[in-house]
Amino acid sequence: MVVIVRGELRLTSGKAAVQVAHAAVLLVRWAEVHAAKELDVWWAGGQRKVALQVPTLGDLEEIDRRARAARIPSVWVEDAGFTEVAPGTRTCLGLGPAPDAVLDPITGTLPLL
Amino acid sequence: MVVIVRGELRLTSGKAAVQVAHAAVLLVRWAEVHAAKELDVWWAGGQRKVALQVPTLGDLEEIDRRARAARIPSVWVEDAGFTEVAPGTRTCLGLGPAPDAVLDPITGTLPLL
Repeated sequence: MVVIVRGELRLTSGKAAVQVAHAAVLLVRWAEVHAAKELDVWWAGGQRKVALQVPTLGDLEEIDRRARAARIPSVWVEDAGFTEVAPGTRTCLGLGPAPDAVLDPITGTLPLL
Repeated sequence: MVVIVRGELRLTSGKAAVQVAHAAVLLVRWAEVHAAKELDVWWAGGQRKVALQVPTLGDLEEIDRRARAARIPSVWVEDAGFTEVAPGTRTCLGLGPAPDAVLDPITGTLPLL
């Protein structure tokens, strides 16, 4: 599982952590219904999560297109906007669970958050 | 839901985000089995999550004791230790889901991550 944060928002560590957690929970709950086998494999393998970053929303949208083309589950997190960003701002994109071999061609070169 | 990170570890933003996400996912999956009603209430209310910090493991242990006494679900995250910390290091404590009125007496004065 990979979560990619939108760097241009310059979120605090705490705010970014909450966005990443939102993405992880949404992906797990989606997978419980739609990808139970992949979820079991990922869970048994230690529930690996990686937090990455890209500069802009456009970068995230391009990654989302490539992930969807590869049939990787993807989820956007929109912030309610009470604090650091405007309501409805897309803060991060979560991908997976999926094997590293599937995710790496799309996210393997992105910098860590 | 509140996740409290152990500040003395001085984790990077990305590492801290992953630890917070681990805690959130573990709490949700625990609640699916043991606290379905509380989970539904929390989910319908926007899946609120807050990331906080305390300096030391001892601080986290004291919070855990108080949370358990108040019957708040709690989970420890231990890091596999591949990168920034030693294997088995307890990095954060997750609490909830529970109403703010239940969590606030225990975590309401802690600083944001």
